[in-house]
Amino acid sequence: MTPTVGKPQTKASRLGPLYAPIEAELEAAEEILRGQLASQYPFVDELAKHGFRLGGKRLRPALLLLAAKAAGECAQEHLTLAAVVEMIHTATLIHDDVLDDATLRRHVETVNARWNNQTSVLLGDYLFTHAFYLASTLGDAFACQMIGRSTNIVCEGELRQIASRGNFELGEDDYLSIIEAKTAELCACCCLLGAHYAGADKTVCEALERYGRYLGISFQIVDDLLDVLGSEAATGKSLGTDLAQQKLTLPVIRLLEEAPQTERARFVGILARPENHRLEELGPWLESSGALRYARQKARSFADQARAELELLPPSPAKTVLEMLPEFVVERQQ
Amino acid sequence: MTPTVGKPQTKASRLGPLYAPIEAELEAAEEILRGQLASQYPFVDELAKHGFRLGGKRLRPALLLLAAKAAGECAQEHLTLAAVVEMIHTATLIHDDVLDDATLRRHVETVNARWNNQTSVLLGDYLFTHAFYLASTLGDAFACQMIGRSTNIVCEGELRQIASRGNFELGEDDYLSIIEAKTAELCACCCLLGAHYAGADKTVCEALERYGRYLGISFQIVDDLLDVLGSEAATGKSLGTDLAQQKLTLPVIRLLEEAPQTERARFVGILARPENHRLEELGPWLESSGALRYARQKARSFADQARAELELLPPSPAKTVLEMLPEFVVERQQ
Repeated sequence: MTPTVGKPQTKASRLGPLYAPIEAELEAAEEILRGQLASQYPFVDELAKHGFRLGGKRLRPALLLLAAKAAGECAQEHLTLAAVVEMIHTATLIHDDVLDDATLRRHVETVNARWNNQTSVLLGDYLFTHAFYLASTLGDAFACQMIGRSTNIVCEGELRQIASRGNFELGEDDYLSIIEAKTAELCACCCLLGAHYAGADKTVCEALERYGRYLGISFQIVDDLLDVLGSEAATGKSLGTDLAQQKLTLPVIRLLEEAPQTERARFVGILARPENHRLEELGPWLESSGALRYARQKARSFADQARAELELLPPSPAKTVLEMLPEFVVERQQ
Repeated sequence: MTPTVGKPQTKASRLGPLYAPIEAELEAAEEILRGQLASQYPFVDELAKHGFRLGGKRLRPALLLLAAKAAGECAQEHLTLAAVVEMIHTATLIHDDVLDDATLRRHVETVNARWNNQTSVLLGDYLFTHAFYLASTLGDAFACQMIGRSTNIVCEGELRQIASRGNFELGEDDYLSIIEAKTAELCACCCLLGAHYAGADKTVCEALERYGRYLGISFQIVDDLLDVLGSEAATGKSLGTDLAQQKLTLPVIRLLEEAPQTERARFVGILARPENHRLEELGPWLESSGALRYARQKARSFADQARAELELLPPSPAKTVLEMLPEFVVERQQ
């Protein structure tokens, strides 16, 4: 039997057929990634290669390339930028794994588990700075500016999330604003860059940017739902981690908002207790109160908003995939 | 008595009179830093303000502004870039403190001590990305490209240093190449940017870039010497940390290279032992063998090389300070 740890990603696991219209471009972007991350220093080279294997669905480069093809033509800039956004995403994953003390990601050992936190912090920084350098080689400062701004908003979102831990008053609007920053912002940036470097006009650029934003919000709501609902085998990570960290996500926020005063106090008591059996205790309530259904419905509504932004685009295979992605995001089990 | 922890930096502690020719510009750059790091989110705002207080000598913005004035005029771009390089330097300090598990830096509590490692990693990322965004607002991609490349080389240098721990065969050339990457590269970049945006010609830009590089190498050799020699009260950090981490610096490399075979084996034995009394045991040998004197002499020789690069500049108050800085770097006690 093949061991799971260290098993490389296959193309099929990266949303396979959905990527058909951009398969060649995605492969070219991977080639750029491989070339850019090669280092003359053996340790740095080994680390960068390992980091590169942690990436998963290649959703961000795919969004960038699909937006480009749906709005015009894919050019060399797009291939470079696809590598840039994947590098940035990988850097944030590696730093997330330090934060979470995670040992496995998508069945591959994390950098902090295989080496240590120090190496993870530096490898993340190495990828971040390399991504910015690569973006600057396009010749104009537009990509640098958009990527700099978006990644800064992502970090701010993550910091806001830390600050909100243990805050049982967190409302739905705050939650949505935080996930928009930490997750949707980079998706929006990818779609905008794809459209901009395809020469699309302002209306199309803005519509695709909003598409990415709504898709990203929908994606994160479902991610948070899977932390409560998913199967550990499918997601490849442990469940209930948000509740363990007293990080309120949409189903719990909804449960607290809709509960009568006395029940609400009991739920807050469960959340605030030092020992962590929160998922076991709250799980049945999340189900019976309709809070899970509500969250799924909310994800679906953002997915619908995403799809609606595509109306102004002419028909194309790339547009068809962009139309299918929101449904895929809402229905995914991992 | 005023408590030391939390005491803000005073201008005098930042190399005071040496900065006279750029005092107004340095203050304007601080103003930009303060403005840029203000956040509408209270937690992010508090963190950024704290991070900003960790900075010390403002050596990198000073180098950038002095190079600008020595090569021509200081413009708005220089003020922005001075803020950018200090932001990047602060980000690397905050990430270094995660790596070292440090609790105090220049008598101010570190971010990881006051909050936690997770917050430190994200705050560092927040500052990095903000710096890149700010650099991109200059309008052309030159600053982004230089800063992206240099910070990438810095991270690569830090990773190479991790890989070299416990390697008792590390030679002087490897050591110099690592400190050139992790420390001197950003100093070189600051001087280059200062000259470039002052409209200096290629010869002047390259000479000032080399000046920054030699000065940075000299600075790091002395930093490593102070880890063996300095007083804890003056440096504000604990000593012998390089030896504790089996990180070979110039005096130890020299000691090992010059020692006869049997003595060398004994020194390696001391370095390799699990318990850490390495500084107490090796200290007298570093002194009596002349290894400390050799390292100081090497620092002085790079300082001389730095100064020699200034010959082609016309006389100016900024040039005078650049001429004095290498001596200051070699003679400093903290």
